[in-house]
Amino acid sequence: MTTPFEFAEHNAKRFQTELHDLLRIKSISTDTNYAPDCQRAAEWLADHFQAIGLKAEVIPTSRHPLVYAEWTGADADATTVLVYGHYDVQPASQDEGWDSDPFEPVEHDGKIYARGSTDDKGQVFAHIKAVESLLQTEGKLPVNIKFLIEGEEESGSENIIKFVAEHADKLRAEVCVISDTSMSSKEQPVIVYALRGIVAFELHVYGPAHDLHSGMYGGSIHNPAQALAEMIAALHAEDGKVSIPGFYDDVREISAQEREAIAKSPYDNVQWAADTGATLPWGEPDYSIRERMGARPTLEINGMASGYWGNGLKAIIPSHAWAKITCRLVADQKPDRIAELFTKYITDITPPTVRSELKVLSSGTSATQVNIEAPVMQAAIRAYVRGWGAEPLFRREGGSIPIVSDFQTKLGLPIVMMGFGLNSDNLHGPNEHFHIDMLHKGIKTSIAFLQEIARVSS
Amino acid sequence: MTTPFEFAEHNAKRFQTELHDLLRIKSISTDTNYAPDCQRAAEWLADHFQAIGLKAEVIPTSRHPLVYAEWTGADADATTVLVYGHYDVQPASQDEGWDSDPFEPVEHDGKIYARGSTDDKGQVFAHIKAVESLLQTEGKLPVNIKFLIEGEEESGSENIIKFVAEHADKLRAEVCVISDTSMSSKEQPVIVYALRGIVAFELHVYGPAHDLHSGMYGGSIHNPAQALAEMIAALHAEDGKVSIPGFYDDVREISAQEREAIAKSPYDNVQWAADTGATLPWGEPDYSIRERMGARPTLEINGMASGYWGNGLKAIIPSHAWAKITCRLVADQKPDRIAELFTKYITDITPPTVRSELKVLSSGTSATQVNIEAPVMQAAIRAYVRGWGAEPLFRREGGSIPIVSDFQTKLGLPIVMMGFGLNSDNLHGPNEHFHIDMLHKGIKTSIAFLQEIARVSS
Repeated sequence: MTTPFEFAEHNAKRFQTELHDLLRIKSISTDTNYAPDCQRAAEWLADHFQAIGLKAEVIPTSRHPLVYAEWTGADADATTVLVYGHYDVQPASQDEGWDSDPFEPVEHDGKIYARGSTDDKGQVFAHIKAVESLLQTEGKLPVNIKFLIEGEEESGSENIIKFVAEHADKLRAEVCVISDTSMSSKEQPVIVYALRGIVAFELHVYGPAHDLHSGMYGGSIHNPAQALAEMIAALHAEDGKVSIPGFYDDVREISAQEREAIAKSPYDNVQWAADTGATLPWGEPDYSIRERMGARPTLEINGMASGYWGNGLKAIIPSHAWAKITCRLVADQKPDRIAELFTKYITDITPPTVRSELKVLSSGTSATQVNIEAPVMQAAIRAYVRGWGAEPLFRREGGSIPIVSDFQTKLGLPIVMMGFGLNSDNLHGPNEHFHIDMLHKGIKTSIAFLQEIARVSS
Repeated sequence: MTTPFEFAEHNAKRFQTELHDLLRIKSISTDTNYAPDCQRAAEWLADHFQAIGLKAEVIPTSRHPLVYAEWTGADADATTVLVYGHYDVQPASQDEGWDSDPFEPVEHDGKIYARGSTDDKGQVFAHIKAVESLLQTEGKLPVNIKFLIEGEEESGSENIIKFVAEHADKLRAEVCVISDTSMSSKEQPVIVYALRGIVAFELHVYGPAHDLHSGMYGGSIHNPAQALAEMIAALHAEDGKVSIPGFYDDVREISAQEREAIAKSPYDNVQWAADTGATLPWGEPDYSIRERMGARPTLEINGMASGYWGNGLKAIIPSHAWAKITCRLVADQKPDRIAELFTKYITDITPPTVRSELKVLSSGTSATQVNIEAPVMQAAIRAYVRGWGAEPLFRREGGSIPIVSDFQTKLGLPIVMMGFGLNSDNLHGPNEHFHIDMLHKGIKTSIAFLQEIARVSS
């Protein structure tokens, strides 16, 4: 009889082809123009769940739909596993430096290149194919399984947050699995135990009522692009600390033990420069590079625009300048408190010669920190040993998954973040990719986890 | 017999319709995509000159062509007048705040709305129609006339500068007339006697090799958008002075007499705020608003961009940030010296955590200051009294017309800057317009000037 592992191996090529179909859908959640594509991605997933033997539904929300699927045919005392993922992706267009169309997947050098390949369609897909491999070979699963796939992870997760708060019963489970994180090398799997939170802003600076001729008025008016630059420059101190008064008040300091553990896998300037392509690290001098990236809060300019930035020259004083800004938060900072402090600071530093507005783009997400002693974590370790061939390390992650803190607090679930991606996969950037063998190792690890977790709780 | 003034009055409506045809041509010189439109505008003008009785040619250059036209049938001892203008326009698109298509002229409230209506197609056209009115009624002109119309005024004037240097003989004249400046009210004409120079730059700041996930690397890297903002903030001191060492070294200070003259037409905060729509003036506290706008050098951010500025959110650390910057110069600053000082300062203030590049976009233009005692200026005063109905004031202008300093120095011509536009015409901004009665008063003033100048030099 064929084992689930063997089934996955025999069907590897078909699995990739199916993933391509999902990657072709431009499910960009941050831009309302792509709402129909998000709908299509949700329907594609629901159809796919049905096809492999799960009950599935597309759940409409006020923005992008959720996909819910379940298989509940396991023994009465079996564990129920909730798998979370997202089908939405970051914006992408080929002229931003992609070597190929971001929505026409290509495979070369052992990788699948496409927007969403590693974040997060490819990783979700590994769990779906694990379930298919178990059902096709054993006729049933060792656990009950529920999938909840959202379409707003890249844009605030507002509707899944509402859904989770209102449907705790439907989502009842014993453990939640999330594959939306990454490891540092193909050989060394990693389980993430801490995530940063996030809160996002748009800072607008307004000067003249319309663009002015820079010769005619130049010298008499505070240029809004200059004023915005001056305000942005005032957001950090020289030592890289965020200058907003009170910003660090609620920060949970890293424990001595944790600093010691982090120091065991150092990240030197040379490796950092090779990974980023930048010249030298920057940031808080009292913290190591790894600590700055995972355990410290930040304020980042994600984008900035004013006036004329196209070909050639337009000799104007722009009427308007704006920046997109995100703060990454750590435990125990609260997004709404940070928004309040930032808003006050912007008011304080806005010169009388311009007008400013700070828009808070969403209610934000708190950081999360997960208990690494739970038995489910031990099951995950065994799953990696069997499915991946190596024992995982535990690590903090600098990114944010809005819904994770809710799964932990509102559903009371232990979270296992099994990431199948790599730091170097260029998620959010051009040429995002997913290693094909990591897709297949991910499928096996997921199969092993569902088997291991059934035994832990029985 | 019909007088030239009467002819102009009878044909007013036709003149407007003809101007519309010229305004429809998208002769944007700063963007190479519009090169064929520049060619069309040049051909349109040459055809029009031929049609009204001048000898005309389109002169190809390495970029946008020049238009040269002449009528040399005046008496042997007659004055020769060189009229300069430009057919190229600033970029414009309706989504920048225009109420109508910038390249489909509409007339309402006594104005023609279109890109280039006041800067500079409408103003050049006034002189063309003055010549037509004289030729049609008197069969000849009181002077010889030469038109030199360029297509690169908004983008550095490099080719006309070369042409003027190489064709001094062809352009031999006794006076040069330029209509590319503006007056403060419809009732009060103004002759400009000083213009600022300009030199343009692009400042690029480079960080990581490609956009990074802001959660993954945030806190460890100097965000290039932030670094650009910090560098821009370092370009001005708190008192509005440009911080580049040596920037003011060659500035010719305003004389006590001139300050007194400027102070006679004050420009208060209320009027300034009404004209600009901004809250409060800004700039060097030791100089009045008018002095800051015309007699002091500046550094302006014309545009700025980095990362993602579209709808929604893209949580990245951008790889690149850039700004477009122009300096307005006064006598006796030299553009190449300013470029050298700025380049050195950028090197000095670039932090080791990013890379920067300052591109000098063109060789720049020196400021000019014209002798207001010349007899041609007195002829211009009489022309305004007859053609406009009011005596003109003399004023400095903050903008730059690259070729003016060359007409003065290389051709040795006294320059008369007869501006028929208004400060409030929104040149370079959305809803640029030209007052229809100023077009017609401009035609009459030009007729009167050609008559007055013939007598001055005979």
